[in-house]
Amino acid sequence: MVDLILTTFDWVPETPRGYVRDLRVRWALEGAALPYRVESTPFHERMVEHFAHQPFGQAPWLTDGDLSIFESGAILRYLGERSAALLPTEPHGRNDAIEWLFAALNSVEMASLPWSLFKFSGDTGELSGWRLFDQFLKARLQHMEPVLAGSEWLMGAFSVADILMADVLRLVDRFDGLATYPACREYVARATARPAFVKAHADQMAHFAAND
Amino acid sequence: MVDLILTTFDWVPETPRGYVRDLRVRWALEGAALPYRVESTPFHERMVEHFAHQPFGQAPWLTDGDLSIFESGAILRYLGERSAALLPTEPHGRNDAIEWLFAALNSVEMASLPWSLFKFSGDTGELSGWRLFDQFLKARLQHMEPVLAGSEWLMGAFSVADILMADVLRLVDRFDGLATYPACREYVARATARPAFVKAHADQMAHFAAND
Repeated sequence: MVDLILTTFDWVPETPRGYVRDLRVRWALEGAALPYRVESTPFHERMVEHFAHQPFGQAPWLTDGDLSIFESGAILRYLGERSAALLPTEPHGRNDAIEWLFAALNSVEMASLPWSLFKFSGDTGELSGWRLFDQFLKARLQHMEPVLAGSEWLMGAFSVADILMADVLRLVDRFDGLATYPACREYVARATARPAFVKAHADQMAHFAAND
Repeated sequence: MVDLILTTFDWVPETPRGYVRDLRVRWALEGAALPYRVESTPFHERMVEHFAHQPFGQAPWLTDGDLSIFESGAILRYLGERSAALLPTEPHGRNDAIEWLFAALNSVEMASLPWSLFKFSGDTGELSGWRLFDQFLKARLQHMEPVLAGSEWLMGAFSVADILMADVLRLVDRFDGLATYPACREYVARATARPAFVKAHADQMAHFAAND
């Protein structure tokens, strides 16, 4: 019997496909070989039940029996406790992985998401506030570059921290924002070459295409 | 003997005072009555040792013996495991608190931080990208309002999730961004009236003033 159920939208427009955050959860589930199934929630009409699971009306959420969890970071931390392939069991390594999991979301994505919104909107002119956010992201990448030049993964073995960091940097790479940060770019290439990412990505694309 | 050492900047300019993220950690430590001491790292000259503890050259970080942790979210999660005053011990309550801890950082602060950067820069004209980020924040607050109208704290008892959520919303309130979200505003007032916040805030202000 499969207890883990990942719920995501039934459909999304072309632009976000391949980047919807259920990808992070699929990647972790595939990487740890945890059995799961995927369910859909309507993209166009967001029901009361949707908000009961995800108060911002977004996706994904994960259920495990009577437990329901939203926020990709919280879900990956939860799955990490179920598999040493996702989170080290030794206390120092575990602490480092959780610290980097937060850093991916709150130090790097905090800068990369506004940057990506400018890129998506095409509004990167001089008067647009763009410079402020371009500098904000560069201030982060400049510190990530030596970290990622020095090691294959964030802390020795691959962990949920790498799933989040690579997925965050992947969206920057989409708009060629890693051109002058080769270690960051190689890290994204290394992470996305992993079979669990390749399967998770293909599955997300097929899931949304099925309802076109 | 005191094992917990919180390190923050020795000094910061006027504008961020009262909002530097060591406040979140001080608040949690005071709230749980955990013994700690505060050390300083230079704001103007950031040393190699600083980057060894905080790879982005920011503050704060917490050390506990030979363990060093950065990221306010990771630090609060760590402290939560040491005190039931910060994190419920019952699995469902604990899961909910951790989920809201991530939501405060990744769903709300992800929108409020760019909004605040526009407000700090004064660049909120029509051509500035401001509208995009103002709408992004409102999309989040509109969902937080019913959540906070329905209960005193995010999940029954006060927890680290409330420390983060209240501190995130407090920065929005500073620029009067909660004027049309009374439940959010009352929540911030309720949280910041707690003795642990009052002491943490006064201590941060005194710490930076001491090096003026």
